[in-house]
Amino acid sequence: MSRPVPRRPQHHKINKDLFVLTYGALVAQLCKDHEKDEDVNKYLDKMGYSIGTRLVEDFLARTCVTRCHSYSEITDIIAQVAFKMYLGVTPSVTCNNASRNEFSLILDKNPLSEFVEELPTGRSSLCYCNLLCGIIRGALEMVHLTADVTFLQDRLKGDTVTEIGIIFLKQPNEKKYRRRK
Amino acid sequence: MSRPVPRRPQHHKINKDLFVLTYGALVAQLCKDHEKDEDVNKYLDKMGYSIGTRLVEDFLARTCVTRCHSYSEITDIIAQVAFKMYLGVTPSVTCNNASRNEFSLILDKNPLSEFVEELPTGRSSLCYCNLLCGIIRGALEMVHLTADVTFLQDRLKGDTVTEIGIIFLKQPNEKKYRRRK
Repeated sequence: MSRPVPRRPQHHKINKDLFVLTYGALVAQLCKDHEKDEDVNKYLDKMGYSIGTRLVEDFLARTCVTRCHSYSEITDIIAQVAFKMYLGVTPSVTCNNASRNEFSLILDKNPLSEFVEELPTGRSSLCYCNLLCGIIRGALEMVHLTADVTFLQDRLKGDTVTEIGIIFLKQPNEKKYRRRK
Repeated sequence: MSRPVPRRPQHHKINKDLFVLTYGALVAQLCKDHEKDEDVNKYLDKMGYSIGTRLVEDFLARTCVTRCHSYSEITDIIAQVAFKMYLGVTPSVTCNNASRNEFSLILDKNPLSEFVEELPTGRSSLCYCNLLCGIIRGALEMVHLTADVTFLQDRLKGDTVTEIGIIFLKQPNEKKYRRRK
Protein backbone atom coordinates (compact mmCIF):
# COMPACT_ATOMS: atom_id res chain seq x y z
CA MET A 1 0.00 0.00 0.00
CA SER A 2 2.72 2.44 0.91
CA ARG A 3 5.96 3.64 -0.57
CA PRO A 4 8.94 5.35 1.01
CA VAL A 5 8.72 9.04 1.74
CA PRO A 6 10.46 10.54 -1.30
CA ARG A 7 13.37 12.90 -0.79
CA ARG A 8 12.40 16.37 -1.81
CA PRO A 9 14.54 19.34 -0.96
CA GLN A 10 11.75 21.91 -1.00
CA HIS A 11 9.48 22.58 1.92
CA HIS A 12 5.80 21.95 1.72
CA LYS A 13 4.11 24.25 4.12
CA ILE A 14 0.48 24.10 5.08
CA ASN A 15 -1.74 25.61 7.74
CA LYS A 16 -1.75 23.17 10.64
CA ASP A 17 -5.41 23.41 11.66
CA LEU A 18 -6.62 20.72 9.28
CA PHE A 19 -4.00 18.37 10.69
CA VAL A 20 -4.94 19.18 14.28
CA LEU A 21 -8.64 18.55 13.63
CA THR A 22 -7.92 15.34 11.71
CA TYR A 23 -5.79 14.13 14.59
CA GLY A 24 -8.74 14.79 16.88
CA ALA A 25 -10.89 12.62 14.64
CA LEU A 26 -8.31 9.84 14.85
CA VAL A 27 -8.23 9.95 18.66
CA ALA A 28 -12.03 10.02 18.82
CA GLN A 29 -12.15 6.96 16.58
CA LEU A 30 -9.68 5.07 18.77
CA CYS A 31 -11.69 6.00 21.86
CA LYS A 32 -14.75 4.48 20.20
CA ASP A 33 -12.80 1.31 19.39
CA HIS A 34 -11.07 0.82 22.74
CA GLU A 35 -12.71 1.04 26.11
CA LYS A 36 -9.52 1.38 28.15
CA ASP A 37 -7.42 4.52 27.98
CA GLU A 38 -4.30 2.39 28.20
CA ASP A 39 -5.26 0.63 24.98
CA VAL A 40 -5.83 3.94 23.18
CA ASN A 41 -2.50 5.22 24.47
CA LYS A 42 -0.72 2.07 23.28
CA TYR A 43 -2.38 2.30 19.92
CA LEU A 44 -1.42 5.95 19.47
CA ASP A 45 2.14 5.15 20.46
CA LYS A 46 2.25 2.24 18.01
CA MET A 47 0.84 4.34 15.17
CA GLY A 48 3.26 7.11 16.02
CA TYR A 49 6.18 4.68 16.01
CA SER A 50 5.28 3.59 12.51
CA ILE A 51 4.96 7.22 11.38
CA GLY A 52 8.27 8.13 13.03
CA THR A 53 10.16 5.38 11.23
CA ARG A 54 8.95 6.80 7.91
CA LEU A 55 9.21 10.48 8.77
CA VAL A 56 12.84 10.37 9.88
CA GLU A 57 14.20 9.82 6.39
CA ASP A 58 12.24 12.77 5.10
CA PHE A 59 13.45 14.80 8.05
CA LEU A 60 17.11 14.00 7.44
CA ALA A 61 16.70 14.70 3.73
CA ARG A 62 15.19 18.13 4.36
CA THR A 63 17.44 19.33 7.12
CA CYS A 64 21.12 19.98 7.53
CA VAL A 65 21.33 17.51 10.41
CA THR A 66 24.28 15.21 9.83
CA ARG A 67 25.99 13.97 12.94
CA CYS A 68 25.20 14.30 16.62
CA HIS A 69 27.79 13.91 19.36
CA SER A 70 25.55 13.67 22.41
CA TYR A 71 22.04 12.88 23.59
CA SER A 72 21.74 16.54 24.46
CA GLU A 73 22.44 17.56 20.87
CA ILE A 74 19.92 15.01 19.58
CA THR A 75 17.24 16.31 21.93
CA ASP A 76 17.94 19.88 20.86
CA ILE A 77 17.45 18.90 17.24
CA ILE A 78 14.14 17.20 18.04
CA ALA A 79 12.97 20.35 19.82
CA GLN A 80 14.39 23.09 17.61
CA VAL A 81 14.22 21.51 14.18
CA ALA A 82 11.69 18.65 14.15
CA PHE A 83 8.99 20.18 16.38
CA LYS A 84 9.35 23.50 14.58
CA MET A 85 9.09 21.86 11.18
CA TYR A 86 6.17 19.52 11.85
CA LEU A 87 4.19 21.28 14.58
CA GLY A 88 5.28 24.90 14.31
CA VAL A 89 6.47 25.17 17.92
CA THR A 90 9.80 24.91 19.71
CA PRO A 91 9.69 23.20 23.12
CA SER A 92 12.30 24.12 25.68
CA VAL A 93 14.69 21.33 26.68
CA THR A 94 15.88 20.35 30.15
CA CYS A 95 18.31 17.64 31.13
CA ASN A 96 17.00 15.66 34.09
CA ASN A 97 19.96 13.64 35.35
CA ALA A 98 23.70 13.77 35.88
CA SER A 99 24.51 11.04 33.37
CA ARG A 100 22.80 13.19 30.74
CA ASN A 101 20.58 10.60 29.14
CA GLU A 102 17.22 11.84 30.49
CA PHE A 103 15.63 14.91 28.99
CA SER A 104 12.35 16.75 28.90
CA LEU A 105 10.72 18.64 26.07
CA ILE A 106 8.53 21.29 27.66
CA LEU A 107 5.67 22.84 25.74
CA ASP A 108 3.86 25.88 27.08
CA LYS A 109 1.33 25.27 24.37
CA ASN A 110 0.69 22.03 22.58
CA PRO A 111 -0.61 22.69 19.06
CA LEU A 112 -1.90 19.14 18.67
CA SER A 113 -4.44 19.65 21.45
CA GLU A 114 -5.13 23.27 20.60
CA PHE A 115 -8.82 22.76 19.95
CA VAL A 116 -9.37 20.44 22.91
CA GLU A 117 -10.76 21.97 26.07
CA GLU A 118 -10.55 18.91 28.27
CA LEU A 119 -10.32 15.15 28.08
CA PRO A 120 -13.60 13.37 27.30
CA THR A 121 -15.66 12.18 30.28
CA GLY A 122 -14.31 8.96 31.73
CA ARG A 123 -11.04 9.30 29.82
CA SER A 124 -8.85 10.75 32.53
CA SER A 125 -5.91 8.45 31.74
CA LEU A 126 -5.91 9.24 28.03
CA CYS A 127 -2.60 10.56 26.72
CA TYR A 128 -4.28 12.54 23.97
CA CYS A 129 -1.06 13.34 22.12
CA ASN A 130 0.64 9.99 22.64
CA LEU A 131 1.23 9.77 18.89
CA LEU A 132 4.07 12.25 19.44
CA CYS A 133 5.86 9.89 21.84
CA GLY A 134 5.60 7.08 19.34
CA ILE A 135 6.88 9.30 16.53
CA ILE A 136 9.96 10.34 18.53
CA ARG A 137 10.59 6.73 19.58
CA GLY A 138 10.22 5.46 16.01
CA ALA A 139 12.42 8.18 14.52
CA LEU A 140 15.17 7.56 17.09
CA GLU A 141 15.00 3.82 16.50
CA MET A 142 15.76 4.42 12.83
CA VAL A 143 19.02 6.11 13.78
CA HIS A 144 19.80 3.21 16.12
CA LEU A 145 18.85 4.89 19.36
CA THR A 146 16.52 3.19 21.78
CA ALA A 147 14.50 5.48 24.01
CA ASP A 148 11.59 5.53 26.38
CA VAL A 149 9.33 8.42 25.44
CA THR A 150 6.35 9.28 27.64
CA PHE A 151 4.23 12.20 28.75
CA LEU A 152 5.34 13.40 32.19
CA GLN A 153 2.95 16.34 32.37
CA ASP A 154 -0.06 17.28 30.27
CA ARG A 155 -2.01 20.52 30.29
CA LEU A 156 -5.10 18.50 29.39
CA LYS A 157 -4.71 16.82 32.78
CA GLY A 158 -4.44 20.08 34.68
CA ASP A 159 -0.65 20.48 34.63
CA THR A 160 0.73 23.92 33.91
CA VAL A 161 2.81 22.72 30.98
CA THR A 162 3.01 19.71 28.70
CA GLU A 163 6.21 17.74 29.24
CA ILE A 164 7.50 14.86 27.16
CA GLY A 165 10.22 12.78 28.82
CA ILE A 166 12.89 11.07 26.73
CA ILE A 167 15.19 8.50 28.35
CA PHE A 168 17.94 7.24 26.05
CA LEU A 169 18.52 3.61 26.95
CA LYS A 170 21.81 2.79 25.26
CA GLN A 171 25.08 4.53 24.73
CA PRO A 172 25.05 5.94 21.24
CA ASN A 173 27.40 4.40 18.74
CA GLU A 174 28.51 7.19 16.45
CA LYS A 175 29.15 4.94 13.52
CA LYS A 176 25.66 3.54 13.79
CA TYR A 177 23.52 6.57 14.33
CA ARG A 178 25.26 9.20 12.31
CA ARG A 179 23.59 9.97 9.07
CA ARG A 180 24.78 8.14 6.02
CA LYS A 181 26.15 10.52 3.42
CA MET B 1 -14.20 17.77 24.85
CA SER B 2 -13.78 20.36 22.14
CA ARG B 3 -13.91 24.10 21.89
CA PRO B 4 -14.45 26.35 18.88
CA VAL B 5 -11.50 27.00 16.60
CA PRO B 6 -10.22 30.34 17.90
CA ARG B 7 -9.79 33.27 15.53
CA ARG B 8 -6.15 34.00 15.03
CA PRO B 9 -4.99 36.34 12.33
CA GLN B 10 -1.52 34.87 11.90
CA HIS B 11 -0.75 31.82 9.84
CA HIS B 12 0.59 28.68 11.37
CA LYS B 13 2.59 26.89 8.77
CA ILE B 14 3.93 23.40 9.13
CA ASN B 15 5.48 20.81 6.87
CA LYS B 16 2.60 18.67 5.63
CA ASP B 17 4.26 15.24 5.75
CA LEU B 18 3.33 14.51 9.34
CA PHE B 19 -0.30 15.29 8.51
CA VAL B 20 -0.23 13.08 5.42
CA LEU B 21 1.23 10.13 7.35
CA THR B 22 -1.20 10.61 10.24
CA TYR B 23 -4.08 10.63 7.78
CA GLY B 24 -2.78 7.33 6.43
CA ALA B 25 -2.87 5.92 9.97
CA LEU B 26 -6.48 7.08 10.33
CA VAL B 27 -7.55 5.39 7.09
CA ALA B 28 -5.70 2.19 8.03
CA GLN B 29 -7.50 2.19 11.39
CA LEU B 30 -10.90 2.60 9.72
CA CYS B 31 -10.06 -0.23 7.30
CA LYS B 32 -9.34 -2.45 10.30
CA ASP B 33 -12.64 -1.46 11.89
CA HIS B 34 -14.88 -1.77 8.85
CA GLU B 35 -14.91 -4.62 6.41
CA LYS B 36 -16.78 -2.86 3.63
CA ASP B 37 -15.14 -0.06 1.66
CA GLU B 38 -18.49 1.74 1.55
CA ASP B 39 -18.52 1.91 5.35
CA VAL B 40 -14.98 3.33 5.46
CA ASN B 41 -15.94 5.88 2.78
CA LYS B 42 -19.03 6.89 4.73
CA TYR B 43 -17.04 7.20 7.93
CA LEU B 44 -14.37 9.35 6.30
CA ASP B 45 -17.05 11.57 4.79
CA LYS B 46 -18.78 11.89 8.16
CA MET B 47 -15.53 12.73 9.97
CA GLY B 48 -14.67 15.20 7.23
CA TYR B 49 -18.07 16.85 7.54
CA SER B 50 -17.51 17.40 11.22
CA ILE B 51 -14.02 18.82 10.56
CA GLY B 52 -15.35 21.07 7.78
CA THR B 53 -18.02 22.60 10.01
CA ARG B 54 -15.26 23.61 12.46
CA LEU B 55 -12.63 24.59 9.93
CA VAL B 56 -14.79 27.03 8.01
CA GLU B 57 -14.85 29.61 10.75
CA ASP B 58 -11.09 29.52 11.02
CA PHE B 59 -10.87 29.77 7.25
CA LEU B 60 -13.13 32.83 7.06
CA ALA B 61 -11.24 34.45 9.93
CA ARG B 62 -7.88 33.99 8.24
CA THR B 63 -8.79 34.92 4.70
CA CYS B 64 -10.18 37.97 2.97
CA VAL B 65 -13.16 36.01 1.68
CA THR B 66 -16.29 37.98 2.37
CA ARG B 67 -19.07 37.52 -0.11
CA CYS B 68 -19.51 35.25 -3.10
CA HIS B 69 -21.89 35.97 -5.93
CA SER B 70 -21.92 32.65 -7.70
CA TYR B 71 -21.22 28.94 -7.28
CA SER B 72 -18.33 29.43 -9.64
CA GLU B 73 -16.78 32.04 -7.35
CA ILE B 74 -17.26 29.76 -4.34
CA THR B 75 -15.60 26.84 -6.11
CA ASP B 76 -12.67 29.04 -7.14
CA ILE B 77 -12.17 30.04 -3.51
CA ILE B 78 -12.21 26.40 -2.39
CA ALA B 79 -9.58 25.59 -5.01
CA GLN B 80 -7.35 28.64 -4.89
CA VAL B 81 -7.54 29.64 -1.24
CA ALA B 82 -8.66 26.66 0.87
CA PHE B 83 -6.76 23.88 -0.90
CA LYS B 84 -3.68 26.05 -1.10
CA MET B 85 -3.90 26.91 2.59
CA TYR B 86 -4.61 23.47 4.00
CA LEU B 87 -3.01 21.10 1.48
CA GLY B 88 -0.47 23.27 -0.33
CA VAL B 89 -1.91 22.65 -3.80
CA THR B 90 -4.27 24.47 -6.14
CA PRO B 91 -6.62 22.24 -8.13
CA SER B 92 -7.91 23.47 -11.47
CA VAL B 93 -11.65 24.08 -11.69
CA THR B 94 -14.03 23.13 -14.46
CA CYS B 95 -17.74 23.83 -14.70
CA ASN B 96 -19.61 20.74 -15.83
CA ASN B 97 -23.09 21.95 -16.79
CA ALA B 98 -24.96 24.81 -18.41
CA SER B 99 -26.84 25.81 -15.25
CA ARG B 100 -23.45 26.30 -13.59
CA ASN B 101 -24.06 24.40 -10.39
CA GLU B 102 -21.81 21.41 -11.10
CA PHE B 103 -18.06 21.77 -10.85
CA SER B 104 -14.94 19.67 -10.67
CA LEU B 105 -11.75 20.25 -8.74
CA ILE B 106 -8.98 18.53 -10.68
CA LEU B 107 -5.74 17.57 -8.96
CA ASP B 108 -2.77 16.41 -10.99
CA LYS B 109 -1.23 15.39 -7.71
CA ASN B 110 -3.06 14.69 -4.48
CA PRO B 111 -0.84 15.49 -1.49
CA LEU B 112 -3.05 13.49 0.87
CA SER B 113 -2.21 10.25 -0.93
CA GLU B 114 1.37 11.22 -1.72
CA PHE B 115 2.92 8.31 0.15
CA VAL B 116 0.39 5.76 -1.04
CA GLU B 117 1.40 3.60 -3.98
CA GLU B 118 -1.89 1.78 -4.43
CA LEU B 119 -5.05 0.85 -2.59
CA PRO B 120 -4.71 -2.04 -0.13
CA THR B 121 -5.56 -5.52 -1.44
CA GLY B 122 -9.31 -6.11 -1.50
CA ARG B 123 -10.00 -2.40 -1.05
CA SER B 124 -10.69 -1.42 -4.64
CA SER B 125 -13.77 0.66 -3.77
CA LEU B 126 -12.03 2.66 -1.05
CA CYS B 127 -12.14 6.42 -1.56
CA TYR B 128 -8.90 6.96 0.29
CA CYS B 129 -9.25 10.74 0.50
CA ASN B 130 -12.99 10.84 1.15
CA LEU B 131 -12.35 13.01 4.20
CA LEU B 132 -11.84 15.88 1.74
CA CYS B 133 -15.36 15.48 0.32
CA GLY B 134 -16.79 15.56 3.81
CA ILE B 135 -14.76 18.64 4.73
CA ILE B 136 -15.98 20.56 1.67
CA ARG B 137 -19.57 19.45 2.31
CA GLY B 138 -19.37 20.43 5.98
CA ALA B 139 -17.77 23.79 5.30
CA LEU B 140 -20.36 24.66 2.64
CA GLU B 141 -23.18 23.62 4.96
CA MET B 142 -21.96 26.15 7.50
CA VAL B 143 -22.42 28.93 4.96
CA HIS B 144 -25.88 27.55 4.16
CA LEU B 145 -25.00 25.79 0.94
CA THR B 146 -26.00 22.20 0.41
CA ALA B 147 -23.81 20.21 -1.94
CA ASP B 148 -23.06 16.69 -3.08
CA VAL B 149 -19.30 16.20 -2.99
CA THR B 150 -17.80 12.98 -4.35
CA PHE B 151 -14.70 11.62 -6.04
CA LEU B 152 -15.29 11.30 -9.77
CA GLN B 153 -11.75 10.15 -10.61
CA ASP B 154 -8.90 8.97 -8.43
CA ARG B 155 -5.29 8.36 -9.41
CA LEU B 156 -5.20 5.61 -6.80
CA LYS B 157 -7.77 3.80 -8.94
CA GLY B 158 -5.80 4.18 -12.11
CA ASP B 159 -7.29 7.43 -13.38
CA THR B 160 -4.91 9.99 -14.84
CA VAL B 161 -6.03 12.71 -12.43
CA THR B 162 -7.93 12.99 -9.17
CA GLU B 163 -11.26 14.77 -9.62
CA ILE B 164 -13.65 15.90 -6.90
CA GLY B 165 -17.14 16.72 -8.13
CA ILE B 166 -19.23 19.36 -6.35
CA ILE B 167 -22.94 19.68 -7.16
CA PHE B 168 -24.62 22.63 -5.47
CA LEU B 169 -28.15 21.55 -4.65
CA LYS B 170 -29.90 24.80 -3.81
CA GLN B 171 -29.87 28.32 -5.10
CA PRO B 172 -27.68 30.35 -2.79
CA ASN B 173 -29.33 32.96 -0.67
CA GLU B 174 -26.90 35.86 -0.46
CA LYS B 175 -28.18 37.07 2.85
CA LYS B 176 -27.72 33.64 4.36
CA TYR B 177 -24.37 32.54 3.08
CA ARG B 178 -22.42 35.73 2.99
CA ARG B 179 -20.01 36.17 5.78
CA ARG B 180 -21.16 38.04 8.84
CA LYS B 181 -19.03 41.12 9.44
